[in-house]
Amino acid sequence: MARDKNVEAITNMEDDFARWYTDIVKKADLCDYSSVRGCMIIRPYGFAIWELIRNELDRLFKKTGHENVYMPMFIPESLLQREKDHVDGFAPEVAWVTHGGEGKLAERLCVRPTSETLFCEHYANIISSYRDLPKLYNQWCSVVRWEKTTRPFLRTTEFLWQEGHTAHADAEEALAETERMLGVYADLCERFLAIPVVKGRKTEREKFAGAERTYSVESIMRDGKALQTATSHYFGDGFAKAFDITYTDKDNRTAHVHQTSWGATTRLIGALIMVHGDNSGLKLPPLAAPTQVVIIPVAQHKEGVEDAARNLFEMIKSDLRIDIDLSDHSPGWKFSQYEMKGVPLRVEIGPREVEENSVVMVRRDTGEKISASSVDPSRLVAAIRAILDEIQSDMFNEAKKFLRERIYDAAGIEEFGGTAENKPGFIRAMWCGNEACEAELKERFAVTSRCLPFEDNAAVAETCVCCGKPADKLVYWGKAY
Amino acid sequence: MARDKNVEAITNMEDDFARWYTDIVKKADLCDYSSVRGCMIIRPYGFAIWELIRNELDRLFKKTGHENVYMPMFIPESLLQREKDHVDGFAPEVAWVTHGGEGKLAERLCVRPTSETLFCEHYANIISSYRDLPKLYNQWCSVVRWEKTTRPFLRTTEFLWQEGHTAHADAEEALAETERMLGVYADLCERFLAIPVVKGRKTEREKFAGAERTYSVESIMRDGKALQTATSHYFGDGFAKAFDITYTDKDNRTAHVHQTSWGATTRLIGALIMVHGDNSGLKLPPLAAPTQVVIIPVAQHKEGVEDAARNLFEMIKSDLRIDIDLSDHSPGWKFSQYEMKGVPLRVEIGPREVEENSVVMVRRDTGEKISASSVDPSRLVAAIRAILDEIQSDMFNEAKKFLRERIYDAAGIEEFGGTAENKPGFIRAMWCGNEACEAELKERFAVTSRCLPFEDNAAVAETCVCCGKPADKLVYWGKAY
Repeated sequence: MARDKNVEAITNMEDDFARWYTDIVKKADLCDYSSVRGCMIIRPYGFAIWELIRNELDRLFKKTGHENVYMPMFIPESLLQREKDHVDGFAPEVAWVTHGGEGKLAERLCVRPTSETLFCEHYANIISSYRDLPKLYNQWCSVVRWEKTTRPFLRTTEFLWQEGHTAHADAEEALAETERMLGVYADLCERFLAIPVVKGRKTEREKFAGAERTYSVESIMRDGKALQTATSHYFGDGFAKAFDITYTDKDNRTAHVHQTSWGATTRLIGALIMVHGDNSGLKLPPLAAPTQVVIIPVAQHKEGVEDAARNLFEMIKSDLRIDIDLSDHSPGWKFSQYEMKGVPLRVEIGPREVEENSVVMVRRDTGEKISASSVDPSRLVAAIRAILDEIQSDMFNEAKKFLRERIYDAAGIEEFGGTAENKPGFIRAMWCGNEACEAELKERFAVTSRCLPFEDNAAVAETCVCCGKPADKLVYWGKAY
Repeated sequence: MARDKNVEAITNMEDDFARWYTDIVKKADLCDYSSVRGCMIIRPYGFAIWELIRNELDRLFKKTGHENVYMPMFIPESLLQREKDHVDGFAPEVAWVTHGGEGKLAERLCVRPTSETLFCEHYANIISSYRDLPKLYNQWCSVVRWEKTTRPFLRTTEFLWQEGHTAHADAEEALAETERMLGVYADLCERFLAIPVVKGRKTEREKFAGAERTYSVESIMRDGKALQTATSHYFGDGFAKAFDITYTDKDNRTAHVHQTSWGATTRLIGALIMVHGDNSGLKLPPLAAPTQVVIIPVAQHKEGVEDAARNLFEMIKSDLRIDIDLSDHSPGWKFSQYEMKGVPLRVEIGPREVEENSVVMVRRDTGEKISASSVDPSRLVAAIRAILDEIQSDMFNEAKKFLRERIYDAAGIEEFGGTAENKPGFIRAMWCGNEACEAELKERFAVTSRCLPFEDNAAVAETCVCCGKPADKLVYWGKAY
């Protein structure tokens, strides 16, 4: 049956992780390829996941006092060039608009790869007094970076994201904001997406173009590779000086503002797939699942089954994100289909359940079967809620255990090399702070410094894993997406 | 005081309507200009209005079974050219990306002016059986049209919008969808934005590039000019043939799908300004107001006043979109400021109100003062809710009366010309259906056909207002934005 093609088996992740990933992306209907180089079409199911993430992040941003705005998608070339490090970082990977309407443009425009320059120009316009500070702005939009190799959700020419841009009276407040927003991302990842993260600071080499400091949250995928899930940057007054963003303080002195920016992208969907997925497909934590529960009738043609399924659905649908599948596919096909889509809980109703006024529930994460009475809808909803809560926390704990088990210490270079080759995960190793050592480790072992972690200070050794000189910096290294 | 500059008087609408409009846009902090030609920055207050509109429309779309997706922002030139009328309509006004990264592109890409071609290409990929139909997709994004003259919210090079794109098994179902979505827009305008509209069909000359039929909702601004507030298009199977979108029906025959598209933009914010605003500024209907109520203490330094205002705010803030202004500006400045921003209801608390446990409320729409007891917060919230409901419906009725009074009949060409010159509004006049007459009226009187209205069939005459030949088509004409 051609219609059942979606539930062909997918590649096993142990056999070919990259193919397993793209199989899920396609077969769970998350996205599709377009004829535009490196750009993807985000399909309804994938977009529904993004909407849940976006709504939760937006709630957290507003709760911390941020306001949404919208800036133009184009940046004139001269504006992009205003801050030197920034343009050096981005100019090589932007798309250029050279013609508009029927004429050639006097100045070419780049399609925004990020919007620091636009926010800075606006801030220079609207900030004049200490009373105008802080400015806590965010925007939801898409940006374009001309990537050479692309992969759905992880690296695409165009992607959806949010970018926060804030301006503060002094360094202290701006640094606190940079940390606060990293905390918001960590909270989103751990509480909402059930993805454990390591918070830390990037090295000079890995920081954002134009930033004084970059913080990130890093996580580990099922293949042991690292993924940077979000970043938060502190700019000091570098952009403020390049764009002349000043304010008059209470004592009537003129000063430059201090700025931050922070962003998270549709890449988070890639993280969801690669942290939780298995060989049956996607596995969504209930908070990030467009459909949390699906009702599937078994032996649907038998008397009372379809009616019972439908009644149950009608009775509890307003309380949960719930779906019912009354199509003429077999129950087995449906089981596989909703496993592929990662729906956290399946509710089965067959002749026996109809007779006993009960339902059988099956957890996507563990496969565990649970029976419950369906006589009292409100008690059933409460029971389902409790199971969903348990799935959410079990998935987080499972992923956290997986992450912890993939953090390896390496005191010397031999050990480092062996771990990099044989044990995918984070390598904890000391670093002297010299960029040459960082470059050498990357060159020899194809690992990058992921971060200098905030919540892990236990030294592995007293010397740099690369050069052997005294070192007091603990770094997490890893192969990364 | 420089800080009080926001409440300088604005231009009177009777003196210069265009300047009155841009004064409000700037002084109510809705948007700002950018250094990018024809592009605007939507500021927090303007964006908050857009979020309310977007959330309500999105709710209505989902309620009618639509799903959100995201398509690439670029369209390869060859894809844009696939449907002839469509490319003729849009190619002259698009922006072209010719370089990406550090190289020149083999094929140039246009920044989407609208996404029919992308949806069609995707539909050709994912539709194969009658079981795949209908597809009811929508996307929220920004689009670019290289406009020669621009105006904030009304006509900008880049603007935010939603575009619905649907595919159906047959013409009947697609036509029903086209009409249903026009109804959704009319509902949004009338119920939510308090903007009365005329629903109707566009002439061949005014229809969308590539459409078989275009429907629109039209409204009248305070200067008597018409504004098209949203459109809904029926494509028949024209695009399906150009893009080869076919499906197999129940009897195993192959057929082309029938399609629709429909859109509304940030222009709706322009309509809000021009339908409801007055010489004190913006006037927002409560449903579309980011802040519905503002509490302003009067004689704030007097004992108990600030505390009473703060207590009141804390007690009722969870039930309403409410703000409090405890800044050191004068009450008079604050009154003007929130009038400028169109906040529907102001709550004043001064020494007398503290003594009497009462508040004074002032309606933005009428200036009417209402006193109420503040002893019982829940009763006060109920009273405020009732006033907001009344403001919402009064504003709609007021605008409806204004619209009705600006619909003029014209049986002959003299009358038509006199009305076009002296009475801004809709001109009801008969038309023979000949495009030459339509063009002549536009040429001579600078009016365009707005629509052939659905809910008005009363003939004005038996002959065409232009050529005098027999005519049975009633058309609303007007000068338009």
